[in-house]
Amino acid sequence: MQLDLFQDVGQLTASLVDIESVSGAEKPLADAIEAALRGLPHLTVHRDGDALVARTGLGRPQRVILAGHIDTVPVAANLPSQVERGLLYGCGSADMKSGVAVQLCLAASVPQPSRDVTYVFYDCEEVEAERNGMLRLSRQRPELLAGDFAVLLEPTGCVVEGGCQGTLRAEIAVAGKRAHSARSWQGSNAIHAAGDVIGVLRGYRARQPEVDGLTYHEGLNAVGVRGGVAHNVIPDKCVITVNYRFAPDRSPAQAEAHVREVFDGWDVTIADVAGGARPGLADPAAVAFTTAVGGTPRAKLGWTDVARFAVLGVPAVNYGPGDPEVAHTAGEHVALSEISECEDRMRAWLTA
Amino acid sequence: MQLDLFQDVGQLTASLVDIESVSGAEKPLADAIEAALRGLPHLTVHRDGDALVARTGLGRPQRVILAGHIDTVPVAANLPSQVERGLLYGCGSADMKSGVAVQLCLAASVPQPSRDVTYVFYDCEEVEAERNGMLRLSRQRPELLAGDFAVLLEPTGCVVEGGCQGTLRAEIAVAGKRAHSARSWQGSNAIHAAGDVIGVLRGYRARQPEVDGLTYHEGLNAVGVRGGVAHNVIPDKCVITVNYRFAPDRSPAQAEAHVREVFDGWDVTIADVAGGARPGLADPAAVAFTTAVGGTPRAKLGWTDVARFAVLGVPAVNYGPGDPEVAHTAGEHVALSEISECEDRMRAWLTA
Repeated sequence: MQLDLFQDVGQLTASLVDIESVSGAEKPLADAIEAALRGLPHLTVHRDGDALVARTGLGRPQRVILAGHIDTVPVAANLPSQVERGLLYGCGSADMKSGVAVQLCLAASVPQPSRDVTYVFYDCEEVEAERNGMLRLSRQRPELLAGDFAVLLEPTGCVVEGGCQGTLRAEIAVAGKRAHSARSWQGSNAIHAAGDVIGVLRGYRARQPEVDGLTYHEGLNAVGVRGGVAHNVIPDKCVITVNYRFAPDRSPAQAEAHVREVFDGWDVTIADVAGGARPGLADPAAVAFTTAVGGTPRAKLGWTDVARFAVLGVPAVNYGPGDPEVAHTAGEHVALSEISECEDRMRAWLTA
Repeated sequence: MQLDLFQDVGQLTASLVDIESVSGAEKPLADAIEAALRGLPHLTVHRDGDALVARTGLGRPQRVILAGHIDTVPVAANLPSQVERGLLYGCGSADMKSGVAVQLCLAASVPQPSRDVTYVFYDCEEVEAERNGMLRLSRQRPELLAGDFAVLLEPTGCVVEGGCQGTLRAEIAVAGKRAHSARSWQGSNAIHAAGDVIGVLRGYRARQPEVDGLTYHEGLNAVGVRGGVAHNVIPDKCVITVNYRFAPDRSPAQAEAHVREVFDGWDVTIADVAGGARPGLADPAAVAFTTAVGGTPRAKLGWTDVARFAVLGVPAVNYGPGDPEVAHTAGEHVALSEISECEDRMRAWLTA
């Protein structure tokens, strides 16, 4: 599959969407992006697994980073892409192949940016933190991620979004006692008992705290459940997987303590946690960017790798085409006009 | 693996337990039983898949059937078998390899029974009805199951148990709407909604009707649950598998109507149903047997293939070693003395 980086950014987005790249299966898309980038003589390209880093080397006093993940959540019967009334539909169209398309267009068509630019394309953002390609890069090739300011092109509807919420995954195991289902009163049904865990989730009241002037919105939800031994056995175990999205005024340790308190008395295993990032919009580099692209910043609710950049000491914001509220839905889509708008504004910033 | 059918019936039971035979994987045990039976010149042996039928052909005026299934529920860290204080522990020890051991001992050591005898060993009793080896035999080789009276050696604690309850499996599908879990209020969580189905199950009051003088005890239970799309997606579907055990005063159609009424408003799919059997203890052949082995008959709660024999027009009862209340539990066991008692009484009946 060949990618033409000089075509219209909307058409390029459609080409990217049509190369399926569910987390863990990004190779075909990474291969296509690598081949296209290697055709650009002004960039030095590095590959690490299914992540790619392409850099200009113009000796500018500042270096900025444009980053995006190339993986998507599982397909929900929403491939191949379709265009209808100016909207491009398809898995990953908003989150975040339109942002990746903007990166690729700029990489190809701005050979002499006013700041040196590092373009980062990485894998496995939509799964547990340990598999994240940006984490791998930050451990194995931190020098490739060095810079003065980073923009993550996650979907924000072309509004600067500050910080991000943290995310924690836990497994709540409910125990029971096996018995033949013809004599169920001899056992104790773990699935029936799990109704109490679901009751806690249904009754949970999520916080909406203000952090550095932006309002966040937490959530605690079941994202998986499994239980059952055989069709004639009262099950002795049921596991509910919950996802806690927490505002950046809570650390990962505080988030874990909160989940353990909510599920006090149950067997709780923390499977995965990634801290959030405070907005950080007072940083000069962030101010310069937000001034250039305009608009009123707001809070980022989904976890993004701005948190990763925060750990590396690089100021970072989220800014990209697409409505974050349609991400991960079967009807995911992005307005073609928004992709172009994002490309135009970022091109103006990089060439100013 | 070679089986010695002339060893003590308790030792033979241990040998059978130690040949793992979870439903669908009975072949090694069926092979061992077949090899042992083919060494007995007074029996004609037929094999059908992993089921075996061995028959005497003495021209007696009556033919009786001794039947047992050779599969077990999944192993629960309870293999190999262990003997402690006269109890044999292990997966399938009660349900029903001790009964199968009695069949095999009698097959080997009673070459001249007072009635012609058909020994039936079959597969896949512990799973959905369509896979049942006795059902397959009844369709493909009904002549092999002909007889005047049948004893199913399911665990009854050496008490004659009449009839059996029916069993129905249904899937209750709960729908939701996908969304990114960082913005859960944009979706509808199917796992949270499934809490209502669990609530119905927890509040269900099971009937305990009397049928032909015996008291049955129904039950409606979740035996499986699954839901979840990805760790950052609000799930749009959760399926709860329920098992309804119904007394033999209800037909399969009545049982289905009942389940649909209980889960009115949900998406209910009937996956599997097997009717029960009324006690039938007034039948002369049943009376002759119960008189010979003694004791006071009671209701059989678990589904057994007496229902299959009822459909074929063969009067049948349950009678075998082992406590049905420990069947399908991790601590499943059988008293060695009970296995011997069962063997002795049935030997007396067959040689009278």
